Amino acid sequence: MVSSKLFLITKNNYKYLEASLILRPYGIRLEQVPLSKEEIQAESLEKIALHAARKAYALLKRPLVVDDSGLFVEALRGFPGPYSSYVYKTIGYEGILALLGNSGNRRACFRTALALISPPVEKLFIGETCGIISREPMGSGGFGFDPVFIPEGHGKTYAQMTTSEKNAISHRGKAFRLMASWLVRRRVYPSNRIHS
Amino acid sequence: MVSSKLFLITKNNYKYLEASLILRPYGIRLEQVPLSKEEIQAESLEKIALHAARKAYALLKRPLVVDDSGLFVEALRGFPGPYSSYVYKTIGYEGILALLGNSGNRRACFRTALALISPPVEKLFIGETCGIISREPMGSGGFGFDPVFIPEGHGKTYAQMTTSEKNAISHRGKAFRLMASWLVRRRVYPSNRIHS
Repeated sequence: MVSSKLFLITKNNYKYLEASLILRPYGIRLEQVPLSKEEIQAESLEKIALHAARKAYALLKRPLVVDDSGLFVEALRGFPGPYSSYVYKTIGYEGILALLGNSGNRRACFRTALALISPPVEKLFIGETCGIISREPMGSGGFGFDPVFIPEGHGKTYAQMTTSEKNAISHRGKAFRLMASWLVRRRVYPSNRIHS
Repeated sequence: MVSSKLFLITKNNYKYLEASLILRPYGIRLEQVPLSKEEIQAESLEKIALHAARKAYALLKRPLVVDDSGLFVEALRGFPGPYSSYVYKTIGYEGILALLGNSGNRRACFRTALALISPPVEKLFIGETCGIISREPMGSGGFGFDPVFIPEGHGKTYAQMTTSEKNAISHRGKAFRLMASWLVRRRVYPSNRIHS
């Protein structure tokens, strides 16, 4: 089949919004597919993303990408890591603040693993942004743990930034730009001739 | 093939020890297979156990059982639930105590979902034991969150009990006894003629 679109498998509208804006300057049109990803319990985002992408590809047979992201807090041995979405839904960022208490070590990194499948290509792209967990939530933009994450060298949380400010420095921004450059370099996009 | 053994897929030696003791009076011999379970991220223990059991069966082709258990804390909206093992490894029971703080609602339930596969049989057994999260850890028996879980009607934590005291009332005890009774009733065990 022939398509000029790339599908993003996610039920998270914010994730889709961020990713679309990042890819726009590259001429890559992203379409959201709100499929439930089949996620394995693994301690690596890469494994989870690749597994989910393969399962989704078996179903859709369209060029697609899966974004698995997580927040890794150093003093909590990487918690919530790959389970960030579940942890956010249950204990929220308030839970992270409670767990850290007055801990002096507030270092944390956000990571994204993108698994791209567009046969014969199957490729992973990684983005990481480190910073600290704030003492209290600030801002209402973004989603998930954004109100308590202050990226290094910035005086505000992800949630206090506009989407494009966040995209310029975020883990997701880095991963999607790596992917976009790779696709453009390989002349896969922009194009009307994606065979899948 | 013919076998009189049932295989338990787990890397957790305590889990194997508990399960073996529970099954012994039924004449069911359990053997540990320390395979990595392929666990999906799902909010149901049943789904996780069944998925892992099917994957393991495809590999082993032997009658087997997978135990997926979790601690569901009411005030934390069910956290850590199906991710109990990862949460234990990262933030420990200290994390659960920190998250609850002085919360008056300390109710929690431990649940086990057992997925049994011994073709043509594929069956789930559920065990649940509710109680409260203690204010501080007590005891050194058991594993995981046992030091902070006081089952209803008992004045001590799982970790303050012997393995057989714990088995008599635990979520795992209930699930494994349901399975054992079912197997014995169906005359699958004890026997030397398990066809799989």
